[in-house]
Amino acid sequence: MKRSGLNWRIVLVRPRNPLNIGAAARAMANFGFRDLAVVKPYDPVWQETRSAVGAEEIVRSAHAADDLLEAIGDATLVVGTTSGSRRTLDRELISLQELPEWLGARARGHRRAALLFGSEKTGLSNNHLSYCHALVRIPTVPGCPSMNLGQAVAVCCYELARAGAVAARAPASRVRVSDPANLRSLEHVFERAARVLDAVGYLKPKSRAATLVKLRRLLLDLGLTNNDVRILGGVLAQIEWKLQLQKPGVRSQKAE
Amino acid sequence: MKRSGLNWRIVLVRPRNPLNIGAAARAMANFGFRDLAVVKPYDPVWQETRSAVGAEEIVRSAHAADDLLEAIGDATLVVGTTSGSRRTLDRELISLQELPEWLGARARGHRRAALLFGSEKTGLSNNHLSYCHALVRIPTVPGCPSMNLGQAVAVCCYELARAGAVAARAPASRVRVSDPANLRSLEHVFERAARVLDAVGYLKPKSRAATLVKLRRLLLDLGLTNNDVRILGGVLAQIEWKLQLQKPGVRSQKAE
Repeated sequence: MKRSGLNWRIVLVRPRNPLNIGAAARAMANFGFRDLAVVKPYDPVWQETRSAVGAEEIVRSAHAADDLLEAIGDATLVVGTTSGSRRTLDRELISLQELPEWLGARARGHRRAALLFGSEKTGLSNNHLSYCHALVRIPTVPGCPSMNLGQAVAVCCYELARAGAVAARAPASRVRVSDPANLRSLEHVFERAARVLDAVGYLKPKSRAATLVKLRRLLLDLGLTNNDVRILGGVLAQIEWKLQLQKPGVRSQKAE
Repeated sequence: MKRSGLNWRIVLVRPRNPLNIGAAARAMANFGFRDLAVVKPYDPVWQETRSAVGAEEIVRSAHAADDLLEAIGDATLVVGTTSGSRRTLDRELISLQELPEWLGARARGHRRAALLFGSEKTGLSNNHLSYCHALVRIPTVPGCPSMNLGQAVAVCCYELARAGAVAARAPASRVRVSDPANLRSLEHVFERAARVLDAVGYLKPKSRAATLVKLRRLLLDLGLTNNDVRILGGVLAQIEWKLQLQKPGVRSQKAE
């Protein structure tokens, strides 16, 4: 990881306390992180967010996103933070200090990554977590597992900087077919697959949501490249056409 | 360090923002630290400090001390945090991630340690730093070196817990002669030595303060035990008596 650090985007999902956005930005600045996105900031919270000392530029250029996918943006690797109290997680939890090793094994070829933090009250939902390649737990003691948001960001940024897992410069913007696919293109494929599975009756109403979460996780774990996604998208389009879910060649794959 | 973790006391020197005391307590609770002392808390700050979530007991039992030595208490090993911007530090700065290794080499025999944090505005003074066996710098980037106090405490507690440098239980209270001397008894010896050095004209008015800081550092580095301190105190008492700085057997019982 030393020389091939990632460009990290820190994503805060619906934070309630404007002080925490500023505190997160300051911790980011302390450890050389620059890219902050906030999902659905409550308007008053967003307005109240003041430039934290030394982090004015981060707050100024922070991205207010409507949903998680938009916030994740071009990241091809997504790591979620959780206190590990949810029972329905199927993914193995990695302790924060093990994250650098996990990245060393898994981040080859990736240039942009996102690190997600849930709201102060609820943390990340199972749905949010299903967008993550890895779930990380800060090793807090059992009696007091839940951390303050700004402090959690500080500790994670410290660990990543400590391990040299942060890129010094912005990544090249050219996207190659052999590069890992970003979450947005994976989600397009995923939505297409869900339509097909609905059409063929694979998804049962009662278990649909849970099954989709599992399938998304499975899709993430395949580590698809942009080229893979193009091929898989083509295959699914053809099936959709055969199932008469869409007209061929119209390109309106998305909704029809 | 794994099995012989230290009992850490976190010492905040004159914090200005009550939120930071609560935040420090919460981070401590998250990582299994229990012992908090605050030097000269401004009264309104102290009154306003509210139990942070999960850290009620830490705040309730926190120790408000009049000076640094009182706050350090029975600790025999003292580590100060600094952004490293002071020019007059003579001690080598250790990066936080190197602290566990330093402790592994240096903390043998020690059971209680103190970790000092300066005020939000000024950090620790050179005088405060002269009480420290080691100075630690959180590896922040040059452009934004200064951390929020609560976040700095969180990152340090994380690193110590990560390295297994925190004792699970309170230490035995029995003090043995072969144990490292605590800062208070070292300071008694130091004050006595300063009196002798004043009397013999070693300390020059102009450089007195700076020389004393250096001498205190030297004394700390000797790693004296309780027994050493007793002997050294006796030697100094005898010199004082010879120099007629005090009457024998009067007020010097302590050292004889």
